[in-house]
Amino acid sequence: MITSVIETLNNHVSVRDFTNAPLDDETLGKMLQAARRSPTSSNLQTYSLVVVRDQETKKELAAIAGNQRHIETCPVFVALCADLSRLKLACELQKKPYAGSLERSLVATVDAALVGMSLSLAAESLGLGTVMIGAIRNDPTKAARLLGLPEGAYVVYGLCIGWPEERPPQKPRLPEELVIHYERYNTDRDTTVERLQAHDKDLAEHYRSLGRETPDAAWTGTTARIASSPRREFLRQVLTDLGLNLD
Amino acid sequence: MITSVIETLNNHVSVRDFTNAPLDDETLGKMLQAARRSPTSSNLQTYSLVVVRDQETKKELAAIAGNQRHIETCPVFVALCADLSRLKLACELQKKPYAGSLERSLVATVDAALVGMSLSLAAESLGLGTVMIGAIRNDPTKAARLLGLPEGAYVVYGLCIGWPEERPPQKPRLPEELVIHYERYNTDRDTTVERLQAHDKDLAEHYRSLGRETPDAAWTGTTARIASSPRREFLRQVLTDLGLNLD
Repeated sequence: MITSVIETLNNHVSVRDFTNAPLDDETLGKMLQAARRSPTSSNLQTYSLVVVRDQETKKELAAIAGNQRHIETCPVFVALCADLSRLKLACELQKKPYAGSLERSLVATVDAALVGMSLSLAAESLGLGTVMIGAIRNDPTKAARLLGLPEGAYVVYGLCIGWPEERPPQKPRLPEELVIHYERYNTDRDTTVERLQAHDKDLAEHYRSLGRETPDAAWTGTTARIASSPRREFLRQVLTDLGLNLD
Repeated sequence: MITSVIETLNNHVSVRDFTNAPLDDETLGKMLQAARRSPTSSNLQTYSLVVVRDQETKKELAAIAGNQRHIETCPVFVALCADLSRLKLACELQKKPYAGSLERSLVATVDAALVGMSLSLAAESLGLGTVMIGAIRNDPTKAARLLGLPEGAYVVYGLCIGWPEERPPQKPRLPEELVIHYERYNTDRDTTVERLQAHDKDLAEHYRSLGRETPDAAWTGTTARIASSPRREFLRQVLTDLGLNLD
């Protein structure tokens, strides 16, 4: 049976072209309420959302994310924040010392990620389009300042929500045998390499069918280029300064 | 409008009591394929799933998670793994040095979290019940060994999936004003404390209506107790040993 949840998932693409139609409060409210039912570790709810419609703020957020225009053109941008501030406050109220750790920062990051996934799906089920913006982590300090986050919170990613002007075609995903394993992970190197190279061909074909240039090693080449470039090496220090313990 | 995605979200509860009915491959396959369409940072797909049905393995996983019986009684347990091994392999194939970082480990953690959220919703839309198991992080090394994970991968959390024997009542969430902010985060301390204390009452009332014991400070008390206890302080070292860079 294909449920409408499965259908919504199957149809997912990231949308970056939005019409200028607004998104009304009532619809947005329903999506947000639904997303708030996402599972959360030990009922701690270590996340917060900041909903941004203000054009000036979106412009500054877009600048942080390397001038991604869709952050300015979407009617609603939601910052999914890991947020340990309420844990710290609960400790204060109960006169107990707060014990931070990498574990807790990961839990908060996962809590925020789950809510964002649910929010994205709720939006898509209504015909809206979304795209997640990890590049907000280019400058977590500035993002936190712009949104007025308390100590112990950072923006894990943002979510642009709006009515799609255009929906791009879906990209093929990695072969399922590489990603889904049964009972034990298949670490056989030759098989893995073979499947990655088969995917390189499929992905290159996909890009060419759209008239886009692509290296032959469409996945491994692009991935190696990204994975060999140092990436946000400031993150540990910056998140620590924002009050997240990563030890 | 309430879509069936929104309805599925609104009805979410974590289910820990499963019937002994099996979950067939075809249904499971559809859910897994749908979940694989979740957004993933830069198309890197830095996650893997290990699907476990084997009773012996589930028993050992249950032991890691503090003997959570539902891990043994659910027909399918899925380990949601952050997985950087394919990035390392792509670098090798392209003869480039792999550059690990906290950023990349967070991206992989979020990728895994998103797929798990989608998988849980797909399951719930079919009438299945699910519960996420963060306590697998009690012993990431043993979990990785049991599932045969490659270097650069760890289990972020597990997901029990099965047919519900019983669905518990939903717990009230924190007041929305604490969690959803508009334009800027409301950091006013007095308002926040007031709302937390109002929630303490609501949650205590909820527990009492179920005949369960509760402290008066139902949320802040429990939360402070958890948040003041050191939590998995080994995690940074253990994940580093598993090949995740957290710097």
